[in-house]
Amino acid sequence: MRISELSAESGVPVATIKYYLREDLLPEGARTSATQATYGEPHIERLRVIRALIEAGVSVAETRRVLAALDDPPTSPHDLLGAAHAAVLPATGEALDTAAAEALAVRLGWQPGMCDDQILAGVARALQGVQRAGFEIPDAVMSAYLESVRTLARAEIANVPTDSPEAAVRYVVLGSVLIEPLLLALRRVAEQVASAERFGDPAAADPEP
Amino acid sequence: MRISELSAESGVPVATIKYYLREDLLPEGARTSATQATYGEPHIERLRVIRALIEAGVSVAETRRVLAALDDPPTSPHDLLGAAHAAVLPATGEALDTAAAEALAVRLGWQPGMCDDQILAGVARALQGVQRAGFEIPDAVMSAYLESVRTLARAEIANVPTDSPEAAVRYVVLGSVLIEPLLLALRRVAEQVASAERFGDPAAADPEP
Repeated sequence: MRISELSAESGVPVATIKYYLREDLLPEGARTSATQATYGEPHIERLRVIRALIEAGVSVAETRRVLAALDDPPTSPHDLLGAAHAAVLPATGEALDTAAAEALAVRLGWQPGMCDDQILAGVARALQGVQRAGFEIPDAVMSAYLESVRTLARAEIANVPTDSPEAAVRYVVLGSVLIEPLLLALRRVAEQVASAERFGDPAAADPEP
Repeated sequence: MRISELSAESGVPVATIKYYLREDLLPEGARTSATQATYGEPHIERLRVIRALIEAGVSVAETRRVLAALDDPPTSPHDLLGAAHAAVLPATGEALDTAAAEALAVRLGWQPGMCDDQILAGVARALQGVQRAGFEIPDAVMSAYLESVRTLARAEIANVPTDSPEAAVRYVVLGSVLIEPLLLALRRVAEQVASAERFGDPAAADPEP
C-alpha cells in the first residue's frame, strides 16, 4: 500500500509517518520509483508499537532502542529483560551513592552481579530525589513497596510465554515499559480508595443508594 | 541572604533560581533596592522541593500546581490527596472508554464518586496504550498488579501523619509524586531477581564465591 493508505489504515498522519521514517523508527518501504514506496502489514504493526511507546511517554531515542531489542533480541529471556530495561534507562554520568539502593535490592533477593548496574543506579537516583526533597519514607511503607513489587514481578516473570521467542520478546520488552503508566494510575485509584476508607468521603460513606 | 548566597547554600545555579522566580515557582525575596532582594530559609527549603520534583520528571507547570497544593492545602487529607493527584494529571480532552478502567477500579474497592474522574481517565489512558500496542496482560498478572497497589496504598495512607497539617500536606503531596520513580526502579530490580530465579543467571547461580 502507499503511504497515504498506510496512514488511513494505521490512523497515523502522513507527516508523522515520514518523521518516524527519518528517525529510523519505521523501516523504509519497498521503493517503486524515485519518490514512491509501498508498505505492508509489518509497517502497520510497527506503527502500533511506536505509537504505544511514544504515548506512554517513552522518548524517540528510547523507542529506537526498544525497537532494536525487539528486532534483534538476545537469546535468553533474562538477557532480553536486561536489554528492555537498558533501552529505557538513562545513561548516567553522575556519581551516585548506591549503598542504600543495594540494601533495598538485597531485601528483594538481589545478589551482586544479578542485574545491570544501571538498574541499581535507577533506584539510587530515585532515592536521591526523595531525600533531596527532605521526604522520609516510613519503614512500614518501604516494606509494603518491596512486598508489592516482589509480588507483581514474580507474577510477570512467571507468565513470560516460552512457546515462541517472538512472544517472549514482545511480552518482556513491551510489558516492562507499557505497564508503567498503568501501575502508577492504579496506585492513584488505590490511594483514593484507602484514603476514603481512612478519612471518609461523603460519596463513599453514604450507605443508601 | 543575597541570590548568590542562596545559590551557594542550595547548590542551585543563579540563572536557574532566576528562572524559577520568573516561572513563579519560587516567591520573590524581600526587596532591598531596585535590583536586589534578600532570601531566607524558606527559599532554600522551597528550592529543595522544586529540584526534587523537576528531577523526578515533573514538568514546570505540574510543579507549580503541586506547590500551590502545598501552599494552600484543602482541609481534609482526602481532598488533599485529590489536589496532589490533580496537579500531576494531564487535563484530557480525548474521549476515553472508561468501562474497563472502572471494572479494575471496582476490584480495588472503588465506588462511584469516590475519586476524581481524572484518576479513572488516567487508568483508561494507560489501558488504551497497552491495547494499542496489541499487548495482553494475563489475568494472573493483572490480579497481582491490583493486589500490589492495594497493599502499598493501604500502607501509604495508614502512615499519613495526622499530628500536624503541614506534615500531612508534605507527606501526601510529595509522597504521591516523588515515590513514582522509586516504585518503577524497584520493580525493575524485582523483575531481574525473578527472571534470574526462573531463567537462571550465571552470576546468581554460582554457588561458590
